[in-house]
Amino acid sequence: MIFFEDTKLGERHTLGSFTFTADAIKTFARAYDPQAFHLDEEPGRRSVFGGLAASGWHTASVYMKLLVAYLKDLAEAAEARGEAVAQSGPSPGFKNLRWPRPVLAGDTLTYTYEATAMRPLASRPEFGLVLGTTTAVNQRGEMVFYFENSVFLPRRNPVV
Amino acid sequence: MIFFEDTKLGERHTLGSFTFTADAIKTFARAYDPQAFHLDEEPGRRSVFGGLAASGWHTASVYMKLLVAYLKDLAEAAEARGEAVAQSGPSPGFKNLRWPRPVLAGDTLTYTYEATAMRPLASRPEFGLVLGTTTAVNQRGEMVFYFENSVFLPRRNPVV
Repeated sequence: MIFFEDTKLGERHTLGSFTFTADAIKTFARAYDPQAFHLDEEPGRRSVFGGLAASGWHTASVYMKLLVAYLKDLAEAAEARGEAVAQSGPSPGFKNLRWPRPVLAGDTLTYTYEATAMRPLASRPEFGLVLGTTTAVNQRGEMVFYFENSVFLPRRNPVV
Repeated sequence: MIFFEDTKLGERHTLGSFTFTADAIKTFARAYDPQAFHLDEEPGRRSVFGGLAASGWHTASVYMKLLVAYLKDLAEAAEARGEAVAQSGPSPGFKNLRWPRPVLAGDTLTYTYEATAMRPLASRPEFGLVLGTTTAVNQRGEMVFYFENSVFLPRRNPVV
């Protein structure tokens, strides 16, 4: 987690990349989304996806894995500089989650976050509200995952 | 998947129930959301969740698991009656996904789907559009998961 004051409108944060191997796709699908086109190559090829395709929830779960690692790195860097580390809290949820294109076996996705609006909160001076979008693109630059979210970030120096 | 004609406004479909054991919570968290309050009891208790809490993406992935099993049962029942089976397709995404309360170790969630609006499509007579909400409540009846989605369902007898 970062502080409200460290967030800049329009600054793009690359959260990380992940390659969806056939094994990773099948392992997730067996546990959480056992549809034929997520479990095996041949039904995948015959489906509208045109190949073994990752579950949309797998794409979303990998986002979370990369976000947690990214925030951990930021926290460790802040600690190394002797700075305060912002605590992570619950997420209120998401808006307009989209999977515009399939993620096929072998695809490498890169996830990026960008803050699109932010404001201090008069009612809760210890927090600021940040709206943002997260996207994932594949190795051809095609968007395959998108959502909007809002988050309350702690203020570094609360105005109380 | 079901046909457009089999969908009734306001009819509630119980997709199934799932108990989030500590083991299941930790296994998902290690793979996809390794934050301390999802990984161990003690940090969970000290967190705003007040206990070992399931990742929100775990709650969502279990929804998918139950939905797939529910649709498989419907398809098998239709097949047994000698009826046509509607084919499942890609999901365009979700709106307003919410996790209003934590899911703690030992909680049993029950997931329910309800269609809230539906209409035939003039431009694509082989499909109908259905809007719906999915919710999960815990053993105390408290809502812990919510989203809205839209889906194109095939028509049993396309008007072409």
